[in-house]
Amino acid sequence: MTVLILTSDEDVTADMVVAQLHTAGASVLRLDPADLPGKAALSVEYRDGDVHGHLSVHGRTVCVGALRSVWMRRPGEPAAHAAHASPWLTAETRQALFGMLHSSPARWMNHPRSAEQARLKPWQLRVAHHSGFAVPPTVFTTAPRLAREFAEEHRKVVVKAASGPPRGGPGPALVLPTTLIGPDADFTAVAAGPALLQRYIPKRADIRLTCVGTELFAARKTAEPDQIDGRYGDTGHLWEPVAVPERIGASVREYVARAQLAYAAFDFAEDLDGVWWFLECNQGGQFGFVELESGLPISAAVARWLAEDATRGTVAAVE
Amino acid sequence: MTVLILTSDEDVTADMVVAQLHTAGASVLRLDPADLPGKAALSVEYRDGDVHGHLSVHGRTVCVGALRSVWMRRPGEPAAHAAHASPWLTAETRQALFGMLHSSPARWMNHPRSAEQARLKPWQLRVAHHSGFAVPPTVFTTAPRLAREFAEEHRKVVVKAASGPPRGGPGPALVLPTTLIGPDADFTAVAAGPALLQRYIPKRADIRLTCVGTELFAARKTAEPDQIDGRYGDTGHLWEPVAVPERIGASVREYVARAQLAYAAFDFAEDLDGVWWFLECNQGGQFGFVELESGLPISAAVARWLAEDATRGTVAAVE
Repeated sequence: MTVLILTSDEDVTADMVVAQLHTAGASVLRLDPADLPGKAALSVEYRDGDVHGHLSVHGRTVCVGALRSVWMRRPGEPAAHAAHASPWLTAETRQALFGMLHSSPARWMNHPRSAEQARLKPWQLRVAHHSGFAVPPTVFTTAPRLAREFAEEHRKVVVKAASGPPRGGPGPALVLPTTLIGPDADFTAVAAGPALLQRYIPKRADIRLTCVGTELFAARKTAEPDQIDGRYGDTGHLWEPVAVPERIGASVREYVARAQLAYAAFDFAEDLDGVWWFLECNQGGQFGFVELESGLPISAAVARWLAEDATRGTVAAVE
Repeated sequence: MTVLILTSDEDVTADMVVAQLHTAGASVLRLDPADLPGKAALSVEYRDGDVHGHLSVHGRTVCVGALRSVWMRRPGEPAAHAAHASPWLTAETRQALFGMLHSSPARWMNHPRSAEQARLKPWQLRVAHHSGFAVPPTVFTTAPRLAREFAEEHRKVVVKAASGPPRGGPGPALVLPTTLIGPDADFTAVAAGPALLQRYIPKRADIRLTCVGTELFAARKTAEPDQIDGRYGDTGHLWEPVAVPERIGASVREYVARAQLAYAAFDFAEDLDGVWWFLECNQGGQFGFVELESGLPISAAVARWLAEDATRGTVAAVE
């Protein structure tokens, strides 16, 4: 049985998991879908009443029926590196690769069906609430008046991107940190693009909780009093392991069950009373930086989940 | 309660359903996500422990909690018509619109979670087989040798696109009909892009079976002896209603249950012995042309499904 890792070539987080899998003696195949076709090849055949598939990378071939798991780490666009790349070639190659993998008995981290839905911020807030987390009031609007009213009601609000920073354009990648604004801000531009505003939670720490299957790893980083977005700037504080409160653990398990996720990275703000406020759940969130600073053995847990011969996931069992 | 139809402005098939809904006195909101923000506006707010959303189109506003159903007909890309359109604005607007709709209690035709998976051809073949359909041998490969061997084994094979014709480039839209080839064809180009080959089924008719909830509508069009792709060229034959064989009906219901689809358009080839061979199942397939020729009341069935106060769909109930 083989673990298939779909990611780009430069991915140190994947390297950490591959090292763990090699140590455990697991068979690993690593593929960037951008290299298909070219460095990689595939065939999927329907005959004799079932789908049989083979995937080859750098001359090494595995049978899709022998895949134990698929890790959707940071896969490139199918056929993006092809000599004659085109949107149509990407669409056809995606059909071939994912049509084959969706027909395999492998478990997914995470299944694309679940991943797509889990990315939607307003959906996250609702699931988080129903899972028992404290969730800050949030508005996502194209109406300048409503944005202004929200800011007037809560006085201190942060504005953030729902889909992450802009990507893929010319020039260097844009950074779009979460930013504090007050009710005096100019909200007219909201009409041209939806704005996500959230009540600012004065915090004494950022919390990153990584859920791998049923294992939870929480890390805490002290925040400076005036700090808004812990992802940017160096405050001298480091990520340190922290115990998961029992109630938070129960909510995390409830959330990933509702969202059908095998992996999830939760961000919380710990307020001045010690309450953990749900900010977001990233189904594809990084964990390398947390592991390196905190020593939490997350990559080993990911490797264990990918390699273990568990009962098939419920999503994959649908078909 | 309101029916939300997501589609582009020019869509006569949607027009047919809207007319039926108006006749039935149902409230309808029609939106092209490409017009958001601009002609349309939205706000979604998390407060008081739940998500509340409003959607406005041309000044008419509906509460997302009052949506009975969402019909994913032919929606444009979110924000595609915006004054300052960009991939990032599209991503943010998709977050706002679909994050809000995924949090609504509405039933979906079809739920995006199911639709994405249902488009994958190799997955379709496997589900079709397990649902009891006859499925022609098929290979989807980047290996010229395997493509040649498949053609040699089956002698007459058709090659077709898995993802539909190329779209969005400059110049007129390309047509890519299913094409008959023999084992003498040149298969070297297969290495540059995956090819989908299928055993040719000599047929006496094309069958289009449209499934709307639990209602089935089958139409049959006589094929000329040398005809490969019934979608192109005029043979003088028309789509005519045909009874659904009991075994086919059972397989269709099995398929849509496995795929979690409220709507599906099945294409079959009726061979010289009368067997219906599964070719594909298009979760977003057209039905206007079949209804206009055959008189089958499909648009009325779609309108009924969208307007009826049914038990909530199982997918939506997950969250």
